[in-house]
Amino acid sequence: MSDEQLDLPVSADVFSAAQTIAGQVHTTPLMHSRQLDALSGASLHFKCEHLQKVGAFKARGACNALARLPEGTNLVATHSSGNHGAALAWAAARAGLGCRVVMPETAPLAKRVAVASYGAEIVLCGPSLADREAALARLVAETSAHVVPPFDDRRIIAGQGTVALEIMQQCREAGFNPDIVIAPVGGGGLLAGIGLAMAALDPGVMVLGAEPAGADDAQRSLRSGHLITSQQPNTMADGLRTTLGQRNFAVIRQTVRDIVTVSEAGIVEAMELLWTRTKQLVEPSAAVGLAAVLEHSARFRNKQVAVVLTGGNMDLDRACSLFSSREKIV
Amino acid sequence: MSDEQLDLPVSADVFSAAQTIAGQVHTTPLMHSRQLDALSGASLHFKCEHLQKVGAFKARGACNALARLPEGTNLVATHSSGNHGAALAWAAARAGLGCRVVMPETAPLAKRVAVASYGAEIVLCGPSLADREAALARLVAETSAHVVPPFDDRRIIAGQGTVALEIMQQCREAGFNPDIVIAPVGGGGLLAGIGLAMAALDPGVMVLGAEPAGADDAQRSLRSGHLITSQQPNTMADGLRTTLGQRNFAVIRQTVRDIVTVSEAGIVEAMELLWTRTKQLVEPSAAVGLAAVLEHSARFRNKQVAVVLTGGNMDLDRACSLFSSREKIV
Repeated sequence: MSDEQLDLPVSADVFSAAQTIAGQVHTTPLMHSRQLDALSGASLHFKCEHLQKVGAFKARGACNALARLPEGTNLVATHSSGNHGAALAWAAARAGLGCRVVMPETAPLAKRVAVASYGAEIVLCGPSLADREAALARLVAETSAHVVPPFDDRRIIAGQGTVALEIMQQCREAGFNPDIVIAPVGGGGLLAGIGLAMAALDPGVMVLGAEPAGADDAQRSLRSGHLITSQQPNTMADGLRTTLGQRNFAVIRQTVRDIVTVSEAGIVEAMELLWTRTKQLVEPSAAVGLAAVLEHSARFRNKQVAVVLTGGNMDLDRACSLFSSREKIV
Repeated sequence: MSDEQLDLPVSADVFSAAQTIAGQVHTTPLMHSRQLDALSGASLHFKCEHLQKVGAFKARGACNALARLPEGTNLVATHSSGNHGAALAWAAARAGLGCRVVMPETAPLAKRVAVASYGAEIVLCGPSLADREAALARLVAETSAHVVPPFDDRRIIAGQGTVALEIMQQCREAGFNPDIVIAPVGGGGLLAGIGLAMAALDPGVMVLGAEPAGADDAQRSLRSGHLITSQQPNTMADGLRTTLGQRNFAVIRQTVRDIVTVSEAGIVEAMELLWTRTKQLVEPSAAVGLAAVLEHSARFRNKQVAVVLTGGNMDLDRACSLFSSREKIV
């Protein structure tokens, strides 16, 4: 599809989403660490979306999407092995809607427990993307459930973008303007939303994406000018293994300056720094922004940088195995 | 010494300390978790002192003590294998004073790095308390350094008590009055300070202490009515292994309703809940308040409870070994 055929979000959608979801999601804090400033040579402001409802920014998009359903919808569905499934389940419960989440049998027990705890019905399927899509298609055929996609959706992009409105307001209340906003990019819902918001609020703020070198489709797409839809992801950042969506790419190439990549060692180091210096438990995907600041430090030096910490949902045993295999930093 | 001979702190000292340290330490957030409320049957408000300067409430007392030094002091000293040493080093650097910290050779590297990073000189000694005291005595004889004790000190107790003034103000701003304030007790600086503050602010608020069953000298002291100064501590909560100070005991028996004890398994479970539900990385000693709420739940049910999270400084490898040996909870 060309951009004209896609139902592309615009900046006004983000402002509208902010009004829609106000009072349903948290205004998360913007956190500062003198130690990490000293280490990075930049002034870093961490937007704490791991403290958001359901432990991830995905609550924003899910809330916005459910307020904009086709009339008469009483059942929503998605496929997700991660935070979007939990967010949709949570938002559906609040809205009094039924919710089914297609999850691979291989999904961690903790994620299944989270989705189930919000009252959604889990439909298990095989591990491949094709398995998930087939299971979701069957479910829709049988139930007429309305599908809320995880990122390639106008309502979702607009909802995630509301985080940028808060960042701007919080920075201004603290007496400065951000030079750069950096966020991790997987499917691109968050990054596209931030790009749209910043284009309207202050086009002088540079919006950057960050992704693992082992899942660098967004960088390759942006630099080549066409959407790359296949990759063999090789990264611990499970939230960033998906490829960019069509709408997401269309928005990102208009509003995002660049995408930078980070190493796996850099992700573990950033996660450890966030744990030990800010006492914030974030998941690997959420540490990618700080990893980018540290691995590309010249680009950020002496700048006011807002870094989105996207989520904090992870298995403690998995975290510990990451740390026990790392190179030690002090 | 009798109470009359001790230089005991009074409530007014806490208010005075608050004025002294304002602007030097953080007003830490009061955090809330719907999931932990549901689990505990109480309304819990976590006072986040792990987000305090140097990662622990100890910054409060150190700041207050350094503002009240004998005239002409230009070198301070203490012995500490924990957060007090780092707090004194930090506060001394801010005040332009020299600082020496006696630490056992067995202290974790991370703690030594923290103290050194604030510019204090570390004096290594043997592992026993006698070794530490002898090393500190030698240092004082050689240098005339002024000793700032970790807890049994009027200025320190008053400084730590300032956390209670913030709790009260934050609760009232949020539209409720706490029924209970619970804090871990080791040497008793924090608990005595909170007791003094609450006695002045609202004697109707019940102040409780919490300690590991394997280091229950405070409970035994309070219940027997005389200070117990020997114990063989057996707990992972390294900040709570010391016995109660004289001044601390004198204040606590006047202002604290009771001390409850918790199991080691309870501490690990509380730490895991705080990590996974609130995404806050706290050290074992800091999890003891939540452990008490969960292990003595009848006492807290339907109450507004402020729980002090005292610190977040720990070795990640140590944390991971605690988790890998635990019973799993989901």
